[in-house]
This record gives sequence, structure tokens and C-alpha cells, in this order.
Amino acid sequence: MREVAVIGVGLSEWGELWRKPLRDIFVEAALAAIGDAGVDKIDSMYVGCMTSGLFAGQEHLASIMSDYLGRSGIPATRVESACASGGVAFRQGLIDVASGMNDVVLVGGVEKMTDVSGDGATYALATAADQEYEVYHGVTFPGLYAMVAHEHMARFGTTREQLAHVAVKNHRHGAMNPRAQYPYEITVDAVLKSVLVADPLRVLDCSPITDGAAAVVICPLDMARKISKKPIVRVAGSGHSTDSIALHDRKDLSEFAATKWAAERAYKMAGVGPSDIQFAEVHDCFTIAEICVIEALGFVKRGEGGKAAESGLTALGGKIPVNTSGGLKSKGHPVGATGVAQIVELTEQLRGESGKRQVKGAKRGLAQNMGGTGGSTVVHILEVA
Amino acid sequence: MREVAVIGVGLSEWGELWRKPLRDIFVEAALAAIGDAGVDKIDSMYVGCMTSGLFAGQEHLASIMSDYLGRSGIPATRVESACASGGVAFRQGLIDVASGMNDVVLVGGVEKMTDVSGDGATYALATAADQEYEVYHGVTFPGLYAMVAHEHMARFGTTREQLAHVAVKNHRHGAMNPRAQYPYEITVDAVLKSVLVADPLRVLDCSPITDGAAAVVICPLDMARKISKKPIVRVAGSGHSTDSIALHDRKDLSEFAATKWAAERAYKMAGVGPSDIQFAEVHDCFTIAEICVIEALGFVKRGEGGKAAESGLTALGGKIPVNTSGGLKSKGHPVGATGVAQIVELTEQLRGESGKRQVKGAKRGLAQNMGGTGGSTVVHILEVA
Repeated sequence: MREVAVIGVGLSEWGELWRKPLRDIFVEAALAAIGDAGVDKIDSMYVGCMTSGLFAGQEHLASIMSDYLGRSGIPATRVESACASGGVAFRQGLIDVASGMNDVVLVGGVEKMTDVSGDGATYALATAADQEYEVYHGVTFPGLYAMVAHEHMARFGTTREQLAHVAVKNHRHGAMNPRAQYPYEITVDAVLKSVLVADPLRVLDCSPITDGAAAVVICPLDMARKISKKPIVRVAGSGHSTDSIALHDRKDLSEFAATKWAAERAYKMAGVGPSDIQFAEVHDCFTIAEICVIEALGFVKRGEGGKAAESGLTALGGKIPVNTSGGLKSKGHPVGATGVAQIVELTEQLRGESGKRQVKGAKRGLAQNMGGTGGSTVVHILEVA
Repeated sequence: MREVAVIGVGLSEWGELWRKPLRDIFVEAALAAIGDAGVDKIDSMYVGCMTSGLFAGQEHLASIMSDYLGRSGIPATRVESACASGGVAFRQGLIDVASGMNDVVLVGGVEKMTDVSGDGATYALATAADQEYEVYHGVTFPGLYAMVAHEHMARFGTTREQLAHVAVKNHRHGAMNPRAQYPYEITVDAVLKSVLVADPLRVLDCSPITDGAAAVVICPLDMARKISKKPIVRVAGSGHSTDSIALHDRKDLSEFAATKWAAERAYKMAGVGPSDIQFAEVHDCFTIAEICVIEALGFVKRGEGGKAAESGLTALGGKIPVNTSGGLKSKGHPVGATGVAQIVELTEQLRGESGKRQVKGAKRGLAQNMGGTGGSTVVHILEVA
């Protein structure tokens, strides 16, 4: 397999973009990434999107995006894996370049969620769960993650305050990210007093509904060394795993096995372990998710994820900063875009372009993006080449 | 890139499968393909599906299918490109094996269309067109292909009877296919007297609404030579292209440019031309589609597609038999499954397993699968290795 590098990154505006159609949002990010890469020719394109069918009545998505981008005629493929759609799209782009089939590949992710046709955002998002065995019985995603939280709290003594600390930390990081949807700090007290969604989760434990897109340009590492004017960022490892979608099928309610397995594969490919990772972007769709994920990634021992945010371990300046971008919680969570946006953050950090939230001496970072309650997960490790 | 072979193929029952859930349909085909391949280990999986979100309220599809198949934990990726979803999924599997990332890859396609939640099948299918520029104005797929038909008839003198001959031929082939949804012969007169859908297209010009799945197992060619007990079928060429989705953006209403470009790429990779192809499965979602597609593939000159079915050129026993399976018209069209089912037909023909509809001495075939009115197309060339 050929080695692969990230040579361009871009984000659209993120937020409630009522005046921008789905295709405009995507193209805004794609043009930013192409401009950043400084390339003219795109050989192939991947689009991560969870459910433009339910959100916008539009499937056949990669074709419409390649056309609107002025690249009609290239191979363009839409990839779906619920909230991991972006990360899985990045992996497909990686495989495409690694195979030798294509050289310069654009990977974008997009979701327009605030202007919903049909049955609304909660229904559309619930299609990431098992429709027949979970959704029909009335459970929604906050409800599913609430069960995960209760199990973790009962078993490991994780506290309600520790959940809040995850949100507080990510908002502190997000306040330093001018592109975050909610770029302001919050307090533990504000989280604890916010509206209850599904006990124990309150609204400030939940990531928001967001319109937005992210895009990256990748190419063979050898080519990157010739054409790129920026520090070269290499994709060192990639791991992808599934797990049962339905929570009740899991052996362990609060262990995200797909994250563990995907991370093992990515670590193996990169020839590194958890202690070699300097910083990470992880899928904090709910505060409890970040806690379980950093355990599954091996950053902390099982059961100690709750203490990590409280102690500052995962804050900027801590041992392993997590979600320097603000994470899904503060930066926003346009589901199909999230996995690609994580790669954007990693790349900017590795290039030293992250301003106030820069991780000092960043040489290696990890991105973890998951679908549903962990029914699919993709992990990537990026390094300064 | 490593060379890739097809070592197992399978289809589920096709038809109105009201008593079978989406996941059962998929697993039926997947188990058939795995059994045919005689392998135990699957390293990675791709699922082609257009819109399980709108048809069944279920996204996150590849994870649910890998779990239900008893393969939870493997990388599983859902690919969407409207009615070309299956063919594009096959291409992604091909790239995965070619890259060296995975060895034994299962590619399946599935759609459950007859038991529709939400706004019905016509709405769900219309999301393959441009929602904002076509669908909002009331046009449906029969309407779009009717415009293509009118243009072809006005410009090249294609007759209403010639359209009918495509359906008659494909039903004649399908009558020899025990797995076809409508395995019976029809007459030109029956087509001409069938219900008008969108002038000039009548209901017997249109492919049906179908529940069904198809699956194939692929692996490196070298490995296939060691483990396969069946004749080895090699993937010689693969081409993928997009075009504008909206018909009004095309320079030429009845030329499917994406088919032309995808075919050029596949021919180049395989080192062959149209005259080297012995038989083909093409995307006859409407009779006019087959006419335009065989022109774009170079089997006949531009404007002469209408005469091909009438003259017997594309019938079994003719110069280049097209849609020996019965095509979408007679075999059925579960949209996400169709592109994979074409690979199943090609493989069985190349192995000499097609019974009454066997193409004598079949050594090389082509599959063409397209989305919408040709906004995406994928072409594969398979050969006896």
C-alpha cells in the first residue's frame, strides 16, 4: 500500500445555516480544502453523510456535490455509517489513494440538520439505532446514552459532576476556536442546572444539532513532499470496526468494543500505543461518550474516564488534551461532517496552525469517530511526516 | 494494485417479500455468496443501498448487516449512489482488496421497497434526482426518462415499437431465469397496450419495485487460484464516473456521458474495447435506458440503439446478448442490489452455470449500473482468468 498524506483542509461555516442549501455548505468546505492544498486536479471524491434522504430529500449525494463543485465526471462516492460517516469516508479515500487507483482525492462530510423535512431531527437521528429493536420501543439517542451513563456511574462511581466536567472542558477549548458553533465557556453549575433530557443527561451534556461541512485533500506521501508548501501530515494508522447497533446485544453496556477494536488496528498499523498519542479528537456526542471512549482508546484505565476531565488530564496543558477543537459539544455536530472535521483539527494542530488552542510540540494525534452508540467506529492516527 | 477475483455469488429471493425484514433479505444473499465461495473468514464488508432511511427508517446499515450476519467487529461500510449503489459498492470492495488493506471482502446490495414508511416509493426514488431543481417541480423518474425517449425518437427516428422490443427481449431472457421477479414472456402488442405512465413510456417499459439482495465474495486473484474450487473469474476493468444529476444541465439529453466515461476507463484498465465484450448486463430501468446505454458503451453507433433489440443483435444468440438475466425489467430492480446482481449474473455466465440462458463460450462480460438518469455510472469488465 502507498503511504498517504493530508495536504489540504477546510471547514464551512457551522451553525444554523438556514440560508444555505446542503450543496452550498459542502462546496464551501471543499473549496477551502482544495485552496489550502493548492491543487487543481481532483481524481476522485468521497462524501460522508448520514441521512440527507431524511434531512433534505436528497440521495445520490456524491454526484450532486461533484457536479456543484464543478468536478462532474470524476468518480464520486457517498459513504454512510451514521455519525461515523465522515470518518469512514476518510478511510475510503485513504484506501483509494493507498491502492494506486487514484492520486489526489477529496474527502468531504456534510449534514444539514436544522431545516428538516419529514419527521424531524430526532427521528432522522434515531435511524442510527436499531429501528426494529430499539426505536420502535420509543428510545432516542439521549435515552440510550443515559443508560450507558447510569451503568458507568453505578459500576465505577462516576459522578454527575464528572460528566459536567467533560462539557466544561470542551467548551473551554471551543471558546478558543473561532469556528465553533457555541464558542463560549460554561460552568459545572450551569450543566447541572440545565434542562433534563434523559436522566442523568441534561441538555448541556448533549452535542447540538448543526449544519456544516468539512473537507480534506489527500494524496500519496511521495507526491505530497513534492507539491505541498505546508508541513506534511502523514496518515500513520487506520482502524475500522463494527459492533452490534442495539445496546441490549452488547456484553458490556459501557464498553465501546468497536472503539477498542478499531484503535487496536490503528495502533498496530502505526506501530504505536496509547501512550504515544499526544492529543486526540474523540466523539463526545454526549459527555458520557467521551468518558467511555478515552477508556476504550487506552488513554486511561477502565472506569477512570470520569476522573480525566475533572483532574485536567484531558484539558489543554494536561497529559493528553482531548477535543482541542471544542469537540462535538462546543464546535457542533453536523453528523456526516464530524469525522472529517476531526481530521481537519488534527492536521491544523500538527502543522502548528491552531492559535490559542495549539498543543505545544504536536507531532502525533488520534481521531475517533463513531456511529450510534458505537455500532461503528473508525480511528485514525496522524503524524508530522 | 493487486488483481482481484470473484469467488462467490448469491442472491436472495426477489419479489414482494412482505414477510421478510430488510436484514433477513440481505443475510439470505450474503450467506449464499459465502457458501458459494467456501470461505470462513470475511475481512471487510460493503453494502450498497440507496435509501433504507426513507424505505425502512434504518441508516447505519452496514453495521446492522454485519451484526445480523454474525460478523460483528469487521469493518463494514455502506455505499450510496442512488440506483448505482450496488455497482459502486462492488468497486469499493475491489479497491479495498486491490490496496492490500483486506483480503476476503463481501460486497452486498439490498433494498426493501414494497413496504414503505413515509411518503412512498415514488418519493423515495425521486431523491435520486435533483430535489431542488427537478423534484420540487413535480417530475418523477418515468417523466425524466420519457423526456430522454422523446429526444431520442425525434432525433434518431427510434420507434415506439423498438422501445417495446427491449422489454420483450428482456422478458424472454428472464423467462429462462428461475430467480426473476417476473419470469414470463410478453409481446410487443402487450407493451403497446399497457397503461401509459409518462408518454411515451408505458408500464411495461418500466422496471418494477422489488425487495431483494445480491452478494459476492472477492479476494486477491492469487488467493483465488489456491482456495477456489470453481472457475476463476477475474475483474479486468473498473470505471466510475459522475455527470450532472439534473437532466436540464446536460449538453445532450439522450447521451449518457457518465456511462461513456466510465466505460472508457474500464476498457482502458482491461486493455479491451467494445468489440471484445461478448455479453453485458446493463441498467434497463426503462426501455429507453438500455437503448441509450448500449450506444454509450460503444456496442452500437449513436442513434442505432433502438434497432438493436428489434434486430435481435442484443438477444441471446445475437452478436452481443444484453441482459441475459432478464435485466431490471424482468428480473426485478431492488435498487441497491441491482449492481451487485449484475456481477452475480456475469460470474455465473463466465463459470458456465446459467442453464437455459447460458451465453456459449462466455469468456468476457461487462456490467453497467447507473444512478438516476445517469448522474453516476459504474462499469466493470469480468473475464475467465
